[in-house]
Parts: sequence; structure tokens; C-alpha cells
Amino acid sequence: MPAPYYSSGKEKIISIMKVALGEAPADLAIVNGDVVNVFTGEVLKKQTVLIKGDIIAYVGDNPPKSIKPSTQIIDAAGKTLIPGLIDGHTHIDDQFLVGELVRYALKGSTTTIITETSAIGSLLGYRGILGFLKAVRNQPVRFFITVPPVISTSPSVNKYAAITPAELRRLLYRKEVLGLGELSWKQANESNPRLLELIAETVNSGKYLDGHSAGAKDHKLQAYVATGISSCHEPITVKEILERLRLGLFVLIREGVVRKELDAVSKIKDENIDFRNLGISADGIDPRQLANDGYMDFIVRKAINYGFNPVRAIQMATINVARHFGLDFIGGIAPGKLADIAIIPELSTIRAECVIAGGKVAFQNGQVVIEPRKHSYPRSFYHTIRLKRDVSPNDFTIRAGGTGKVNVRVIDHVSDLLTREVITAMPVTDGLINIDINRDLLKVASIDRYWQPGKLAAGFIKGFGLKRGAIATSTTWDGAHISVVGAGESDMAQAVNRLRELGGGTVIVSDGNILSELPLPVAGLFSEQPMELIARKYDEIQQTAERLGTKLPDIHMTLQILATPSIPFLRICEEGLFDLRQNQFVNLILP
Amino acid sequence: MPAPYYSSGKEKIISIMKVALGEAPADLAIVNGDVVNVFTGEVLKKQTVLIKGDIIAYVGDNPPKSIKPSTQIIDAAGKTLIPGLIDGHTHIDDQFLVGELVRYALKGSTTTIITETSAIGSLLGYRGILGFLKAVRNQPVRFFITVPPVISTSPSVNKYAAITPAELRRLLYRKEVLGLGELSWKQANESNPRLLELIAETVNSGKYLDGHSAGAKDHKLQAYVATGISSCHEPITVKEILERLRLGLFVLIREGVVRKELDAVSKIKDENIDFRNLGISADGIDPRQLANDGYMDFIVRKAINYGFNPVRAIQMATINVARHFGLDFIGGIAPGKLADIAIIPELSTIRAECVIAGGKVAFQNGQVVIEPRKHSYPRSFYHTIRLKRDVSPNDFTIRAGGTGKVNVRVIDHVSDLLTREVITAMPVTDGLINIDINRDLLKVASIDRYWQPGKLAAGFIKGFGLKRGAIATSTTWDGAHISVVGAGESDMAQAVNRLRELGGGTVIVSDGNILSELPLPVAGLFSEQPMELIARKYDEIQQTAERLGTKLPDIHMTLQILATPSIPFLRICEEGLFDLRQNQFVNLILP
Repeated sequence: MPAPYYSSGKEKIISIMKVALGEAPADLAIVNGDVVNVFTGEVLKKQTVLIKGDIIAYVGDNPPKSIKPSTQIIDAAGKTLIPGLIDGHTHIDDQFLVGELVRYALKGSTTTIITETSAIGSLLGYRGILGFLKAVRNQPVRFFITVPPVISTSPSVNKYAAITPAELRRLLYRKEVLGLGELSWKQANESNPRLLELIAETVNSGKYLDGHSAGAKDHKLQAYVATGISSCHEPITVKEILERLRLGLFVLIREGVVRKELDAVSKIKDENIDFRNLGISADGIDPRQLANDGYMDFIVRKAINYGFNPVRAIQMATINVARHFGLDFIGGIAPGKLADIAIIPELSTIRAECVIAGGKVAFQNGQVVIEPRKHSYPRSFYHTIRLKRDVSPNDFTIRAGGTGKVNVRVIDHVSDLLTREVITAMPVTDGLINIDINRDLLKVASIDRYWQPGKLAAGFIKGFGLKRGAIATSTTWDGAHISVVGAGESDMAQAVNRLRELGGGTVIVSDGNILSELPLPVAGLFSEQPMELIARKYDEIQQTAERLGTKLPDIHMTLQILATPSIPFLRICEEGLFDLRQNQFVNLILP
Repeated sequence: MPAPYYSSGKEKIISIMKVALGEAPADLAIVNGDVVNVFTGEVLKKQTVLIKGDIIAYVGDNPPKSIKPSTQIIDAAGKTLIPGLIDGHTHIDDQFLVGELVRYALKGSTTTIITETSAIGSLLGYRGILGFLKAVRNQPVRFFITVPPVISTSPSVNKYAAITPAELRRLLYRKEVLGLGELSWKQANESNPRLLELIAETVNSGKYLDGHSAGAKDHKLQAYVATGISSCHEPITVKEILERLRLGLFVLIREGVVRKELDAVSKIKDENIDFRNLGISADGIDPRQLANDGYMDFIVRKAINYGFNPVRAIQMATINVARHFGLDFIGGIAPGKLADIAIIPELSTIRAECVIAGGKVAFQNGQVVIEPRKHSYPRSFYHTIRLKRDVSPNDFTIRAGGTGKVNVRVIDHVSDLLTREVITAMPVTDGLINIDINRDLLKVASIDRYWQPGKLAAGFIKGFGLKRGAIATSTTWDGAHISVVGAGESDMAQAVNRLRELGGGTVIVSDGNILSELPLPVAGLFSEQPMELIARKYDEIQQTAERLGTKLPDIHMTLQILATPSIPFLRICEEGLFDLRQNQFVNLILP
């Protein structure tokens, strides 16, 4: 089992040693820079770093005579060298092609990314993860993945896409697979049998159980951790962080697209404790933030702005993460480590002037100067909108017996993420229950797009605030769905049908007109467009939705999570409404 | 590849979770103790630890109601709980049987031992390591090994016992094998081809390269570290420690049988640096110290006496070592970790009243209460003194041509460990060069006892100080030798022949009488006697040697290392004198 990004060999070792001994020219020399030594927590002045191939051969203030005419020299006088940053928990298996991310990661001093594969895994299962691994391998940025357990509200997904213990074992055998992806504490504590088998498989393999313990505490948290969970990126208070650190967890403060916690938890910096088990991560990427602000550089900068000591903030995005995941060959600037280095004019702002990845200058003078590896996805990644026919407005019809009013179970948004169940009396007109725009009772539907194509459940939802039109997307969490919300059944049907035409995507329709669309032809999840265009499309979709009446801060995000079993409480999939508290399907209309 | 000491499974996970949730009784509860939380560096008061099987289910001050009549309860009021201590670098593949060590380790709060296998590996190669692994598996104390490269002064050992890359690969596949054992920086830097192949094999496997960089600095140290070396236990000054920590190495302060560095390096505690990469280890065990003072408890106690903060000293022998070696399931007291815990009445003295290993009370009321697993060694471990005939005094004869004086290359002890070459004029009498007791010019010989049995080289040695008698041992470092030093050839021959009779051991003879002997019938390396008896024998051998005139502080140790390529400068094996500076054999008599 070869390491995915780092391989050693006799001749290679000799060539590196010769550079350290002054017997052969370095390929690259960074001279006169101050180095953030994440091992000791010091900033060491006027250092020279010598690089041979992808490996650092020497770091110090008394370099051997290995700088020769063939050596590329970078003068870092007055600047600071930090290790390439690591995103220890994120999701990049949707939205954009890997190559597009690589450009922005390099620009953002981010040379290693540890990503979930729950989007592609929930759609295509084991095959999907294998296909995704092909895309991320041998890129200028190093990728590692965790394998999602694949637990969906959708019975089809649970049946056809779920990862089996045998599949997990095969995946864990790979170096680029670090463990089992964020597994919900509720499902673990409820002893979901397959999940416990996956946990045991991972523990026995010596790999990592990435945790997801949002809201858990005391006995429930301890029970969850006792299964072997080794990390969590969910705490939202200092108290929650402390409780988890004391339980031996590696805690990643999340500052990303879905949630931003730094503001609330930055006081953790004032605790007089050992911080080795504290990290920081994005947990999802917004192309707009990526294009405008940066990647891990932006997040570390924010941590510094919130008062973290800069060296500690850098440790939280480098050595701490690397050591947690046993990635000893990255995370610090030292001989024998992979040459992942960012050169920063100002330590407190973490804005790289030059980024070296695997020994190669990758970003310089504002430009990414090495190309991501071109890759293609397997054929199974295309044609994943397998609806055999267009949907019609009638498919969203909701019938009820009798006349007068019936009690309807409505998905009510407490926030843009959390939902609750509300029971609302709605009139029955000619056997139908209709949208009530005035009360913000819109229709929502979830359509299986892959395993039982066309299977559909509809219901009512509160909180989207659309006064007209509809929005549909194929990029949904933890499922193989199309989710659609609308103020009218025709627009809903048109949005879904346009999405079918596109082979996947997000579409907004109003009054029979397609107002905005983002094609996602790869697995219905990935755009093949440049990042800036995707970012603009997100803005356009949001602005369009706002014109149609929504008050949601990010309607696309809220739409994406409608089927997830990970965020409480009432969700919808192709089988109907799913109550996460009871862990079962519930009726739309109450008797 | 199952983990050697920790295996998970669905039913096991459920049973542990139930204890944390208060739904099933704990097997063992430790109540009211203060817990050293090595993750945060805090001491948390009045904690309850609940254990199910071998795993900790809960740690905190608000325990679930899982203490039932079936639960064994230990009241730790006023006492402190620390994680079982870890020896991160030692040598236990000689001297005593594993079971004997286990008793003293448990008494000494030491629940995990990471050991070299260079003694058995240098004798029997791959087969020897496999046999040793059988002895250490499934013991109440956890053992992990590193694989020695096996580099000897002896051509036979280098030919027949050396570990090949293919053998290493098979060994690295095992969970209980952590990496390649301490490899000499000189041999690495000299590009010994097999060593570089072993290094590459280890790096590519993702396992650890244990370093041995005694005396290296600057470019040479960097070249060595650049090969992928990840640790070193050799620094003897604060400066050397700092240099290594800055290079990203994990540094183990050695406080053991061969050397004790704590006194000289304890000022490192005053540096304002990150200490995560600092550990402490024994690097070899003296049965006398084990019997009288303790094991890692004694070493941590010494660190505290030298001024280390007790929590930091404990971290240095627990979490720091565990994290370095990726052993995330030990090293701290938290749910999901193996239940290795010592209960200490006084934090500063680290003298356990009770030790729990793998969830079982192992030491209590001054007694070890669980039995080490009985084990036998393979047949290849017996009959390793393969001399076909007794040696005779004439075998130690050293002849020279001509008359008058000749210049002889003498092994001269600069200290009890280090030797140098001195050229000494010695008279030739009847074609022979003879022992000169007045000038302390004794005879030394090295005899191949295994691969080319009986092959012998003799020479002269200065520093043993024997006025009469001889001492021989079969427990030599990095070889398959019998080493013998004497003030007379008859006694030398008798010592070797008695050792042959015993099937291995250490023997002191004088004037035809066997004065003291320690039989080592297993591989010529291990005694089958109790530790106390071995300790007494060591004392007896030393006292006997002192009566015979030696001033060496530990004659047995000095004798053991006569053939090693690891300690400068002039050594002897069955082929003759070996000069480590030149890395070649040199003549005894100069032209």
C-alpha cells in the first residue's frame, strides 16, 4: 500500500541527504525568512530552507553550501514561513471540480484537505467514493478522505448506497482514507447495527472515527466517545469545547459555510490548558467566500483577529491537525517533511505572497503557477437524474378526504438550518390541500432521482417565504434526491423538469420563466464551471430568491439540507416526512 | 490485521455505551479520585471512572447510575489517578523472561512498553523477532516492538541475521510492530544500501523510524532527520534537545541503565516552548534498579524531583509517547481508551497503591495480583551456543614474528562505554605476545557462537583492570558472540567452556574456579530465573570482578558492548578488530 503523496526510496534518500550535507545542489532554497516552528512554538529568525524534490532537506541559520546555479532561490527577507495549512474537516465532494478548488486552496496557503465524501457516497455509495478518489489523487494539493457511513432518511439510499463493513475495510486499507466520516452521535447511541459495525471496523483498522456530537453532553456524549470517536467539529461554546478536550477528543473549531463559531468560542484561548488537541476547520466551502476572502488563510486570519496568538492559530491549522490524523510528514517545516510552505509578508494577516506545495512553487505574484491535474469522472457520475419522464404539476397534488379543515404536519424553519414540526389546520378544497402564500405554507417535495427514479413525496413547509416561483436542486445532503420548494405547482414542475434537462443542477423558476440556473451535470452535484462563475451563480440564485420573497440568508443551503438526518427535527425524503426525534416516518395529515 | 490489544465489535460497543448511559453496571468503578487529564494538562477533582471490560466508559464528576452490586468499587478519595505509564524506548529482549518484567512493570505503574529487538534480532534475525513477538503478546502489559536493522561488526551476522526489506515489510504489517528500530545516524549518513532500503520501506509503510543520533549536529543531524527519522533518545544536553525538537523529532530523555541524562538536561523544563514532542524513557533495564527502585514510576519521580511539573512529567511518559507512535487508545484517562490507570496517594512521588491494566486490577496492596501469561520460546531459541568443541587456552594465543617489541593496536576504555585505539609497544617472547597485568593489557576475545561456531579473534584490551581471572558472556550487543576478557588464557578458556555447558550465560572464573555464574539458557540471552535472583547475580558478578581488580562500574555492561558498532570507536568481533571511524577491520599488530 503505497503512500498517496509521499514515497521514499534509496536513491531519493541519498539525494536529499546530499543537499543537507552540502554535497549536491538544492532544487529550491528559501533564504533569510523567519520560520514559524510549530513543533516548539517558536519563531526562528533568518532561516534558510533547502528543498530537494518534494522534501525539505535542511532548515536552519547555518546552511550547507548547497545553493548552486541550478538552485531556484526565493529571498524571504523580512517575511515569515509557515507550514502549508490543513483543512481538517470539510466537504468538497460537490459544487465544483477538484481542479477548481485546488487553485483557490493554493492561493489560500492550503496544501492539505481532509474531506468528507458524504455527498457522492450518499448518491452512489462505494462506487461513488472510488470515483471521487480518482479525482483527488495526485493533485498539487494533498487530499485525504473519510468514508461516510451513509445514513439517510431515504430507505432507497439506506438500502442501495449504504457502505457495508466489507466495503469500508477495503477503503480503510488505502492510505488516503483516514477513517470513518462524521457519524451522528444519535445514530451511534441508538445502536444502529450497521453503524456500530462500521465503527468497530474502523477501530480495528487503527484509523480514525470522525465525530459529530452536536448538542451532546454528559452521559450521552461520554457514551458516544466511548465507542472510539476521536474528534468533533461541532462545539459551539467554550464549555462544549472544554468538555470534549477533557474527554480526549480532537476538537476542530468550525468557521465555514454552514456555521461560524470562532466569535462565540474564541475565549477558549484564555484557558490555561494544553491546546494540542484544538484545531480549526472549514466544514464546507462557499465558493463566494473562497473567491472573495480565501480558504484556510482566511480562517486562521480570523482566529488571529479574535485574539489567538498567531503561532497557536497556525498550529491549529497545521501540526495539531496533522498529528491528530497521524500525518507526520506534513504540518511543519523540518527536514524530511514534505515541502509545503507559505511565505507570508505579515504573520498576523496570513496572506501568502508565495506558496510552495510538494516542493514546487504553486502560487506566486498573485497567480497560481502550477496546473491542477486534469481528471475525468467515471461514467457512473453522469446521467444521475434518472427520471423516466417529466414531472407534472399534478405530481405535487396533496389530497385529503372530507371537507372543512384538516390538521397538517408542516416543516417549520426555526432557523435556516433547524426545523420543527408544527401542526397546522388547513382547508380542504375539492379534496385538495393547497398552498397558502399568505401564511407562508409553501409546497415542498422530495423526488428520488436515482434508486427508485420518480418516487415522490410532497408536503408543506414554512420559512422559505417565496411569494411566487419555485426552486429545485439535485445537490442535496445525505440522499439521492431532487428537493423542490415552491409557491405554485407549475413552477415546481418546471424547475424539476429543467433540472432533469440539465442533468442536475439548481433552478429557479417563476411564472413559467427560468430565472436562474446552475447546471451540475456531474452526479447532479458538481458544476464544471470556474469557481468565480459558480460564486456568481450562487449570488444570482440568492438574489433571485430574495426578489421572489425569501428572507432566508442562503436559500440554496436551506434547500440542500431538507432530507438530511443530521440536522433536527422534521425532514422530507421521497418516502415522506421523517421525524428525527422518533427516528421514523410520520403522516402528513393527522387523523 | 487485528490490533494486538484492542479490538472493537458491535456487542462490545453497546455494552460500553450502556455503562456510560447508566443502563448497565460497570465492571469496575474508581470513585472520588483526582484525575490527571493529560489531554488538557489539568488535574480534575473528585472524578469517577467507570470501566467495562478493558475500556473506560465514563470519566467525570456526574456519573451515571452504573455502580451496581456486581461492580467492583475502588475508593480513591484523596488520591490521584494517572494513566498507565509508557516506556517509549527500551530493550527487553535479553536478561529476563517477559513474565518477570511484567510483574515489575505493573508494580511500577508501567502498562505499555515499546522495545527494541536488537539482541534477539542480531542473533537469530527475522526468526528471532517472530519468536520474541510470541512471548510478548497477550500479556497484562502491552508490548510493541521496533525491528532492528541488524547491523553488526560481524560479517556473519550481517550476512545471516540481517533483516531484509521483504522481512521488514512483513513485520511492519503487524500492529504490534511500530517501525524500524534505532538506526545509527552514521550508518544512515554513510548510505549503507540495505539500511536505506529499510528506511524507505518503513517510510512507505507509514510507520516510524526510531532514531539514534548521538553526537550528531548541524548538517549531519539534518541529513539524518531528512531521511524520515522521527525520534531520538540520545541527546545529552539542553542544546541537543532543543536542536532536535526544532527539527520536529520526538525526543525521549533517557534515564536508564546505560546512561542517565535527567540531571544534565532537566533545565529544558524552563524553556518557553511546546513540550508535546518531549518524552522520557529507560532505554534498557537494570534488574537491580527494577527490583529496588521501580520502573517508569521511578523515572517520572526523578523528573519531578529535578523540577518538572508533575503533570508535564506524566505527559512525558504517557500521552506524548502515545501520540508520537499513533497509539491513540492509550496514554490518557478518557472514555474509549484502554483502562490503564495507576492510583497514586501522592502525585509528586508516583508510587502506585493500585494499578489497573486493561481494566483489570493488576497490582494492589503491594502485590501483583494478575499472572503474566506463561509462554515458551521456539526451539530455535535453545542451543544457540553451537561451539562444536571446548576452547583451549591456546585458542587465545597471539603470535608475532621476530623478537623484541611490536606495535599492537589495543582497545582502550576512555570510559566504561567509549573506547579508543592506542598503539602500544609489546614484547614478543618465543613468538608470542602475552598479557601484561601490570600495564592492564589483558586479553580479549570474541567468538562466533552461532553462524560460524568457534571462529575466534583475540586481541588486547585496557581498562578492565582484572589482576587475575576472566569473565565471559554470551549476551552481547549486536552480534552472536561470546565475549571474554581475562588476565589469563586458562581462565578465559574455562569461562567460555562453562558458558558452553550452561547453554549461554555470564561466567567469572579465577585460578581454575568458577566464582560466579548467571545462566542464560534461552538464546544465550535470557535467564529463566526470578528478577530478584538475576539482580543478585549481577551484584555478585560485579563484586566478584571488583575483588579480581576491576574498577569498571558495571563490568557486565562493558563486556556486553565489546562488539557493538553503535558506540565508538574500536570494537572486536570474531573477525578481528573493527574501527568504527573507518568502518573497517584493522590489524592487531602493526607492521
